[in-house]
Amino acid sequence: MNRRAFNLGLFSAVAVTLLKPSQAQPKLRVNGGRINAHLAALSEFGKNPQGGVTRLAYSEADLQGRKYAMGLMREAKLEVSIDLAGNIVGRRAGSEAALPPLVIGSHIDSVPEGGNYDGDVGSMGAIEVAQTLAENNVKLRHSLEVLIFQNEEGGTIGSQLISGELPEKQLDLPANSGKTIREGIKILGGDPTRFAEARRKRGDIAAYLELHIEQGGILDTEKINIGVVEGIVGIMHWEVTIEGFANHAGTTPMNKRRDALLAAAKFIEAVNRVVTSIPGRQVGNVGKIQALPGAYNVIPGKVVLSLELRDLDSAKVEAMFGKIRVEAASIAESTGTLFDFKQTSVSYPALTDERIRRLIDETAKGIGLSTKQLPSGAGHDAQEMARLGPVGMIFVPSVGGISHSPREFSRPEDIVNGGNVLLQTLLKLDTMRLR
Amino acid sequence: MNRRAFNLGLFSAVAVTLLKPSQAQPKLRVNGGRINAHLAALSEFGKNPQGGVTRLAYSEADLQGRKYAMGLMREAKLEVSIDLAGNIVGRRAGSEAALPPLVIGSHIDSVPEGGNYDGDVGSMGAIEVAQTLAENNVKLRHSLEVLIFQNEEGGTIGSQLISGELPEKQLDLPANSGKTIREGIKILGGDPTRFAEARRKRGDIAAYLELHIEQGGILDTEKINIGVVEGIVGIMHWEVTIEGFANHAGTTPMNKRRDALLAAAKFIEAVNRVVTSIPGRQVGNVGKIQALPGAYNVIPGKVVLSLELRDLDSAKVEAMFGKIRVEAASIAESTGTLFDFKQTSVSYPALTDERIRRLIDETAKGIGLSTKQLPSGAGHDAQEMARLGPVGMIFVPSVGGISHSPREFSRPEDIVNGGNVLLQTLLKLDTMRLR
Repeated sequence: MNRRAFNLGLFSAVAVTLLKPSQAQPKLRVNGGRINAHLAALSEFGKNPQGGVTRLAYSEADLQGRKYAMGLMREAKLEVSIDLAGNIVGRRAGSEAALPPLVIGSHIDSVPEGGNYDGDVGSMGAIEVAQTLAENNVKLRHSLEVLIFQNEEGGTIGSQLISGELPEKQLDLPANSGKTIREGIKILGGDPTRFAEARRKRGDIAAYLELHIEQGGILDTEKINIGVVEGIVGIMHWEVTIEGFANHAGTTPMNKRRDALLAAAKFIEAVNRVVTSIPGRQVGNVGKIQALPGAYNVIPGKVVLSLELRDLDSAKVEAMFGKIRVEAASIAESTGTLFDFKQTSVSYPALTDERIRRLIDETAKGIGLSTKQLPSGAGHDAQEMARLGPVGMIFVPSVGGISHSPREFSRPEDIVNGGNVLLQTLLKLDTMRLR
Repeated sequence: MNRRAFNLGLFSAVAVTLLKPSQAQPKLRVNGGRINAHLAALSEFGKNPQGGVTRLAYSEADLQGRKYAMGLMREAKLEVSIDLAGNIVGRRAGSEAALPPLVIGSHIDSVPEGGNYDGDVGSMGAIEVAQTLAENNVKLRHSLEVLIFQNEEGGTIGSQLISGELPEKQLDLPANSGKTIREGIKILGGDPTRFAEARRKRGDIAAYLELHIEQGGILDTEKINIGVVEGIVGIMHWEVTIEGFANHAGTTPMNKRRDALLAAAKFIEAVNRVVTSIPGRQVGNVGKIQALPGAYNVIPGKVVLSLELRDLDSAKVEAMFGKIRVEAASIAESTGTLFDFKQTSVSYPALTDERIRRLIDETAKGIGLSTKQLPSGAGHDAQEMARLGPVGMIFVPSVGGISHSPREFSRPEDIVNGGNVLLQTLLKLDTMRLR
């Protein structure tokens, strides 16, 4: 708090002269051509021949993309720095130095063979909002921070570092690029030795807003302009081990087998049945499976598989898991196998702020856009930022809901809509008493 | 034929004086203590600390085991040589030089971390039969060959080489020991450059008898002394590829998924249902599975799995496969996936000779043993030898049907019973006109 408040104080001295009341800007719009041109230019860094990008956190492509984004931030009259965690911070002073900043942003790193919209839309959108404010000499009460988080695709690492959620021992785990997070922080210009100092506290931000593509295809299917995100779902992971008995697949009669893969097949069907038998938007996935010893002619004696359950409501996830365990016990009984569940990760749901949700919804409708409230099934930096203050998320349609793929695509007009909702929501938030 | 007939002729000159009519030996029995002592001694070569052996074809342990077996063969007054394929051949001349030999044998190589009975019982049993004949000065009409086949566990390689089933290009494939078959043949004392000459022709043998443990546990469960093998099942393998669509496991609604692993789960259940819904001893196995891309948070877009079907009747295997394809088409329809089947190997069923089956059955009952006719679900060298002449197989119980495991165990008394049935069946076969 002290360090940041001090910096913001420095900027506010020169900023006062530019002050205009933000509530007087209902017609202000982003430059739609520019935001889409910036997206196209960013797509060059880590571009793949088959389309899309591979811009893994800490890679050369990531560094090039960050350099490009920092250039845009300076054009948008932001004061650019790298925080201790390696995130890019672009600051614009507010008129009231005592207020914590309003933060907007996203990420520009990608998954291997990813697309050009996940993270990029929110990052270029946030910079465009700052540029629009600068061009129109709009001075906010709150200072503004545009944050481009590092390594979102590796598990919201940049935002976890500042929200204090990442245990220090995880710094030595390798990221997708092969470099450890510790090495990555150094490469990006942060300082992993000052791990504890990178953290911000609750109340250090006035609010956080993130614009992002909706990766599920609901807005696209229903032809809705703007998604008002209810929250980011909680995600629980288990490693499930099924023990049967490996035996000769030719000589062991069918009724004498303890086939771990047959049990696994029944389990995968049961997971699907449990998850789809309840009303709601909860999801469940079995994405990994290994059968041992793994030969044409040996009955699988052991299977290890992954189970993932997601919902906005932790109690619902727990209830689904309870039903799945009951099904597993019955499958174990009928197949002569044993099931073991080991929870390997838990992330709790993060709800968006009810006032911000309402504000996004009204703002979008005010500029003639249709809206829908929906959960985010994917994790986002916003879920970490929710530990520091109220958050809101704005979704724009992604064609076919395709994501983490070169085929990921959002229409230019939808991106411009998202940018305008972000801008106008920010202007209104600036007038509100948020605490 | 010519080469072997010539050799047999040489021996028959001295053999005539020893001739006794074999039908006059109904009380002849093997030395039960000796056969089990030889089995125990053989178990030292490649012995594992946790029990059982790893005696991979072409390894040092294999060479030591073969040296031990050849020593026993010489003690049994057999003329020992290595054929061009690297199999060990022990010959005892018969009284009628024009007759092709009666062949008995098995193998002594093991799978990795295998047991002390699979192959060993038949090999030590065959040598014991020869020793018993020698000690009792029994001269057969046919010459006798004790054959210890090389690399049975790598796919009945030694017997395929002499039956002409192995394509020459397969000589360069690596065996379990890491050495190629070509290198292995050389190491064992064969000659891979004389590939074609190693082959024998149909009619080159009068008959082949193999004693083996029953690897399925039926005899053990039903407390039956001797299994009369109806034939060796045909084995068909397919690689099954299921194409769905990989997508984000958090954001894709459950009813929008094309989950290849859910389709695979339904398929694995369908295979089990089809195979178990028909009366009979047919078996089916899905032993290998891979889901791609294979992550907690990605819906599997592709699954590759193995399908194996076995039965004594090829038509039944084809019929089961037809039903499985119908089920797959229905699963593809309901899950939005595509199934592709690629046949990766075919081995046709090999039936044992009906006269030899009856002879084994009568012989066993004649010495007070219970019998049961059953198929062999596992492959054996006998299936290759069936291309050269009539074959028969004698099974003895294996406790719990456990095989290819250090826990493989057959009781000493069951092994002795098997040795006696092999001896007496051989004596009776020798009196028969087999063609």
